[in-house]
Amino acid sequence: MSTTLPRVNRQVRLAARPVGLPKRGDWSFTEEAVAGPGEGQLLVEVSHVSLDPAMRGWMNEGKSYIRPVAIGEVMRAGAAGRVVASRHPGFKEGDFVVGTFGVQEYALSDGKGVNKVDTRRVPLPVFLGTLGMPGMTAYFGLLDVGKPQAGETVVVSGAAGAVGSIVGQIAKIRGCRAVGIAGGAEKCRYLVEELGFDAAIDYKSEDVKAKLKEHCPDGVHVYFDNVGGEILEAALARLARGARIVICGAISQYNATDAVKGPSNYLSLLVNRASMTGMVVFDYAERYGEAARAMAGWMAEGRLKGREDIVEGGIDAFPEALLKLFRGENFGKLVLKVG
Amino acid sequence: MSTTLPRVNRQVRLAARPVGLPKRGDWSFTEEAVAGPGEGQLLVEVSHVSLDPAMRGWMNEGKSYIRPVAIGEVMRAGAAGRVVASRHPGFKEGDFVVGTFGVQEYALSDGKGVNKVDTRRVPLPVFLGTLGMPGMTAYFGLLDVGKPQAGETVVVSGAAGAVGSIVGQIAKIRGCRAVGIAGGAEKCRYLVEELGFDAAIDYKSEDVKAKLKEHCPDGVHVYFDNVGGEILEAALARLARGARIVICGAISQYNATDAVKGPSNYLSLLVNRASMTGMVVFDYAERYGEAARAMAGWMAEGRLKGREDIVEGGIDAFPEALLKLFRGENFGKLVLKVG
Repeated sequence: MSTTLPRVNRQVRLAARPVGLPKRGDWSFTEEAVAGPGEGQLLVEVSHVSLDPAMRGWMNEGKSYIRPVAIGEVMRAGAAGRVVASRHPGFKEGDFVVGTFGVQEYALSDGKGVNKVDTRRVPLPVFLGTLGMPGMTAYFGLLDVGKPQAGETVVVSGAAGAVGSIVGQIAKIRGCRAVGIAGGAEKCRYLVEELGFDAAIDYKSEDVKAKLKEHCPDGVHVYFDNVGGEILEAALARLARGARIVICGAISQYNATDAVKGPSNYLSLLVNRASMTGMVVFDYAERYGEAARAMAGWMAEGRLKGREDIVEGGIDAFPEALLKLFRGENFGKLVLKVG
Repeated sequence: MSTTLPRVNRQVRLAARPVGLPKRGDWSFTEEAVAGPGEGQLLVEVSHVSLDPAMRGWMNEGKSYIRPVAIGEVMRAGAAGRVVASRHPGFKEGDFVVGTFGVQEYALSDGKGVNKVDTRRVPLPVFLGTLGMPGMTAYFGLLDVGKPQAGETVVVSGAAGAVGSIVGQIAKIRGCRAVGIAGGAEKCRYLVEELGFDAAIDYKSEDVKAKLKEHCPDGVHVYFDNVGGEILEAALARLARGARIVICGAISQYNATDAVKGPSNYLSLLVNRASMTGMVVFDYAERYGEAARAMAGWMAEGRLKGREDIVEGGIDAFPEALLKLFRGENFGKLVLKVG
């Protein structure tokens, strides 16, 4: 970055708390001059912004596992980019990095929570997907919370998404039967033919309860839930004795303007001596290295495949790109290309 | 028992599967001659029949943790009585016993699941309560599933009932703060003044959410649920990080004619990294002895108190007596006196 040429940082800020699906008017677009890094800071030119279902929750007021994004604040987002100036001893110009840089073209950072990544063998967006938060979520949610044993049946919803596709593949690596639930024949074909799932259920055209019965003859031992709603109920109806449900998300409910729909058959937990446990990936931060090493190894062996769904159009395309998640239109890890 | 005088066994049988609260017409009353025991059998004169919320579930068709009671079958029930004739090597005339003898005055048994009890220091009905299934349920549900640590806050619903009252007392014995939710000022007073709960909430006259906030300043670490419905939601709204919910029952929902109401704020499990786990006491059968010894010890020390709510009127009073449970009218362990 030339320090003599002023540059403009374009940003997306939260303008209003959305009711239902976020509208374009819930965002504001701002521009400000790019400041050089102060002592101990680095300046990152953002190239890829991660789009995650959890972002919808961050836009709501009220206590959650992380503070809400304030009105007027740059929207929180994981992102990847390149260091263009540094006065931080741990980073130098040209380093590729990932961190919570927000929906903007340039980010100043004190380096906290920023990780350098090696893009020589792995493209940068993969560090927002398989080797990023979605991968970490899948790894710890499945293995630490779901505790699948070889021979058990693991069912995952949102199975063609960034987290779900990894959950199913790790289940296979661990010797389980993997059944994915996704929307559309193309996604289902991808899960079975390209990722090696044992079966896939198209919730848009198939009876999920009937298909779970067909594909899980011994019941569901681990259900990894990304969606909530009716699909959670269908899985509850098919639990094996001692089953574990991992509550990772509930994308079907995030934009609900009525009350969230709770699972009316939750007493299946009692009948089947089963558990339902919530997980938040940040709790495993100290062990990200362990997961990244394991998953990079599986990727190198060809046993774990990622897929990025990259939206062009830069910062201005952010509002529409985010909606793809809630419409189930993304296929793999959804990323916005910036700049 | 004189073998020369024929006796009549009066029985209550399930006549129809109830819709909503069981009506008198859902039962039939039959009489048959009492048969003497065959080889390997014993004959029990039943003196006390246990009335349990779970009985409502056994009356429904469909898969559960135990097969439904068939139409025309003597209603399943835990009961206590005296052996009046025996051709079983393990039992002799005069032994006091507990077992699943059903709602009838005499029961023939092959001795399976029948236990002799010592009534010299403990009255017989206590073996249907504190030292029976409710006690076992409280002990294993709280300690094995809830895993309370000293200093944590344990909240229990149905707290003046057979299970709930024991849960709170064991929580105190283990060094926890115990908060009970019950219906009515008298029950609440009993919990605090006689059983040593730290606080009690009267769900009939108080705002449960507000009171949970007041009485659980550090949040709810263990919630032992006997009732489901709105009280489960209130507890979910107040979970501490890493909380454990034990799903023991859902008496508010057992007679629902609409769909069961699932907890609409179940995503509190995610936000708080909490779990919700179902338990069925029969899974702990091999360890009943351990629990009975511990609880008998606490009773002898005066640290654990039981209370039986004994309904007179014999077999004929069964239908009305059962309804007391679902109307929240029982105070302690509800038992029907027979004969």
